[in-house]
Amino acid sequence: MTRILTTRRIIVGIVVTLGYLLYNLAFATAGETGEAAGHGSEVADVLLGLIIILLAAKLGGDFFERFKQPAVLGELIIGMLIGNLVLIGPDIVEPFKHSLTLDVLAELGVIILLFEVGLESSLQEMMKVGVASFMVAVFGVIAPFFLGWGVAIFFLPEASIYVHIFVGATLTATSVGITARVLKDIGKIRTREAKIILGAAVIDDIMGLIILAVVVGIINAANTGGDGVGSLDVFIIVAKALGFVVGSILIGNLMMPQIFKFGSKFKVAGILLSTALLVCFLMAYLASLIGLAPIVGAFAAGLILDKVQYKDFTDRGEHSIDELVAPIGVFLIPIFFVKMGMMVDLSTFGNTSILAFAGVMTIAAIAGKQVCSLAIFDKSLNRIAIGLGMSPRGEVGLIFVGIGAKLVLDNTPVISAGTYSAVVIMVIVTTLVTPPLLKMSLIKDDKKKASA
Amino acid sequence: MTRILTTRRIIVGIVVTLGYLLYNLAFATAGETGEAAGHGSEVADVLLGLIIILLAAKLGGDFFERFKQPAVLGELIIGMLIGNLVLIGPDIVEPFKHSLTLDVLAELGVIILLFEVGLESSLQEMMKVGVASFMVAVFGVIAPFFLGWGVAIFFLPEASIYVHIFVGATLTATSVGITARVLKDIGKIRTREAKIILGAAVIDDIMGLIILAVVVGIINAANTGGDGVGSLDVFIIVAKALGFVVGSILIGNLMMPQIFKFGSKFKVAGILLSTALLVCFLMAYLASLIGLAPIVGAFAAGLILDKVQYKDFTDRGEHSIDELVAPIGVFLIPIFFVKMGMMVDLSTFGNTSILAFAGVMTIAAIAGKQVCSLAIFDKSLNRIAIGLGMSPRGEVGLIFVGIGAKLVLDNTPVISAGTYSAVVIMVIVTTLVTPPLLKMSLIKDDKKKASA
Repeated sequence: MTRILTTRRIIVGIVVTLGYLLYNLAFATAGETGEAAGHGSEVADVLLGLIIILLAAKLGGDFFERFKQPAVLGELIIGMLIGNLVLIGPDIVEPFKHSLTLDVLAELGVIILLFEVGLESSLQEMMKVGVASFMVAVFGVIAPFFLGWGVAIFFLPEASIYVHIFVGATLTATSVGITARVLKDIGKIRTREAKIILGAAVIDDIMGLIILAVVVGIINAANTGGDGVGSLDVFIIVAKALGFVVGSILIGNLMMPQIFKFGSKFKVAGILLSTALLVCFLMAYLASLIGLAPIVGAFAAGLILDKVQYKDFTDRGEHSIDELVAPIGVFLIPIFFVKMGMMVDLSTFGNTSILAFAGVMTIAAIAGKQVCSLAIFDKSLNRIAIGLGMSPRGEVGLIFVGIGAKLVLDNTPVISAGTYSAVVIMVIVTTLVTPPLLKMSLIKDDKKKASA
Repeated sequence: MTRILTTRRIIVGIVVTLGYLLYNLAFATAGETGEAAGHGSEVADVLLGLIIILLAAKLGGDFFERFKQPAVLGELIIGMLIGNLVLIGPDIVEPFKHSLTLDVLAELGVIILLFEVGLESSLQEMMKVGVASFMVAVFGVIAPFFLGWGVAIFFLPEASIYVHIFVGATLTATSVGITARVLKDIGKIRTREAKIILGAAVIDDIMGLIILAVVVGIINAANTGGDGVGSLDVFIIVAKALGFVVGSILIGNLMMPQIFKFGSKFKVAGILLSTALLVCFLMAYLASLIGLAPIVGAFAAGLILDKVQYKDFTDRGEHSIDELVAPIGVFLIPIFFVKMGMMVDLSTFGNTSILAFAGVMTIAAIAGKQVCSLAIFDKSLNRIAIGLGMSPRGEVGLIFVGIGAKLVLDNTPVISAGTYSAVVIMVIVTTLVTPPLLKMSLIKDDKKKASA
């Protein structure tokens, strides 16, 4: 007993000492790590950020898993806490808060996550749910768009029609990252519901980005006094997006075996993982080139990769691509979720009119996605779970609102500071309530099926 | 036969098409990927950079391995080629050349490399070669320092004494990254020579950085008209560096089992890898805080980590830390070496007086490190190989000269453009000749031992 107590005391002592050390060091950086030290301070800031983010992610994730909640929720909440420590005094995130590198690492994290999710799904399986996914996506874009437009008219009666349309557009997107992570954490990623949600979320992202591109085009045209966006422009934007997804899947599927056969001729180490990462990054890059989210490309890349294509490698005893990508995911994925939590400014939660706007918008966001269930005719499927799975706006909503804040119309930003806060709160709430609700819904479903 | 030809033709077709596509896309980015596309162009630039770097690394590495040369040499050379394509027309690296994120990813790559090298060495084994390493390091710092000082006096008679000292300081450092990679590629990382070189390179890096810190301190003091750096300041800089290395190894070695015991209580996935990365990043960060290179900390972290400490995890069937870190290395390490090649401006190779300065400096750099062999009393060791292993200046030399170019004395930079080019050429040559010479020397040694 004494020995256990001593060990525990040593551990607590070490953790406290390390925390204290790190805390003090974070404040002592400025003078000590400069150019003169021989190494740029950006690397030191990134290292500090990685240390705090990885430590926070594991502490938060573990805490929530002990309460049978998905680890991703813990990563988000602990991100919110450390991002807002400045409210009670110390700001340990200041040295790396504005690090562009950490933002890109977070973005690479969500690209790797979607690649992993794509690897776990197969194209054949996706095809089986293709029509259902498409219908869910269409309903899940139209309903929130008009609901959001209406809410914006009610709360911002003075604002121009473009502002109302923009708020509506912000409500369309689905953050497939959050849902994919929850489904993965609770072991439901291979269910039919999961496939419908993931397929729909990808189609949704494409449709949302088309709406965004069109809205931004209209506002830019209005600013220059032009005639607005012609129907030909809209057609081109839509055609490019559809062309990418269908084209990359068709061409990619044909080329994959050849690419891996070519790769297997290389003598250098790590060629299987390098080839897989190249396919993933290339498709993510191509997606971003035509104006889609890079994660759409990464998901498509995972989808077209199949174990059969790289049999030459696994026959030689190499690990599968899933296993090789996993450690990179362990390193990068938590950065995305902790950073998303850190971006939340808890002090905006104090303004009642913003809170009212945010509250109604959140209800519109969740209700709008429940309309998706109208597109599901198969009664054996869990409709509520599908609607819930489509609810989190996550990073996509934040990207949308960030663009709106930078867009200017008649010398005022399209998204004002107040609207920005309201949208951020909507994004947080839809993102935070999804994991527990989705988990409850799917687990209840399991129990019902077990007792039937 | 016809079938093989057809397959080969398809592969060539795909590679050419992809190359052409990528090349065109690289030039079409500006207009298409903007804020309006919904995703910052930094991510797109980084993705493009990763695609070109990973592809180039594997092509270059494979080419050199076919000629029985280390893959790292191929990565450097192909980096030089793509970095200088602008000389013959297209500049495909322009969109990501100045990406701070890729620089930090490269830096993380070399941190992971040194962590891996540390993991492959054990503290006990290092201790056995400790005295030899220390002596090699001392001789390998003093000789090149004074040789470089002399060469600078000869080629830059007009310049101040501080410039001469600075050039001398640039010659002291050893790029343990290059040597470690070569020793790893040719399977010699566990030899006694390798341990002496790696130990000496780490001590060398510490001594080199102390010299740099002192020289920078003297120049800054000269600028402000002060009395220069007092002996107390020098003592503090030296004490901090020694304290870090000895202290971190002693404390770390005591704490490691406790840290992993604490980690094993966590329920979340990926905790072993996360804990290992935390230890690595924390020690790299602490090293950078006290003004040392982060890689010194990463190497020390690898050194104190031992399989016995995380038996709890491997007993449960988890992979070892080496295996978990390897895929992250496959992803990040080539970025460092390709980027190092890319930084070389081949057009500076045209100036004869710079080439003469560079040539004599290179001879001084290599001869200076061969003096190391005077510190080796054990005749069974390959002295020439040890001197060669200490020769590459690599990233450390480039970091030194970069700092010198930014330092100003009497309104002129301490390192002029011409001196900069000469130092860069010296760094390239010492870095390029080391892998084949070191390999030859160690392989010849093998044959001699086998015939004896």
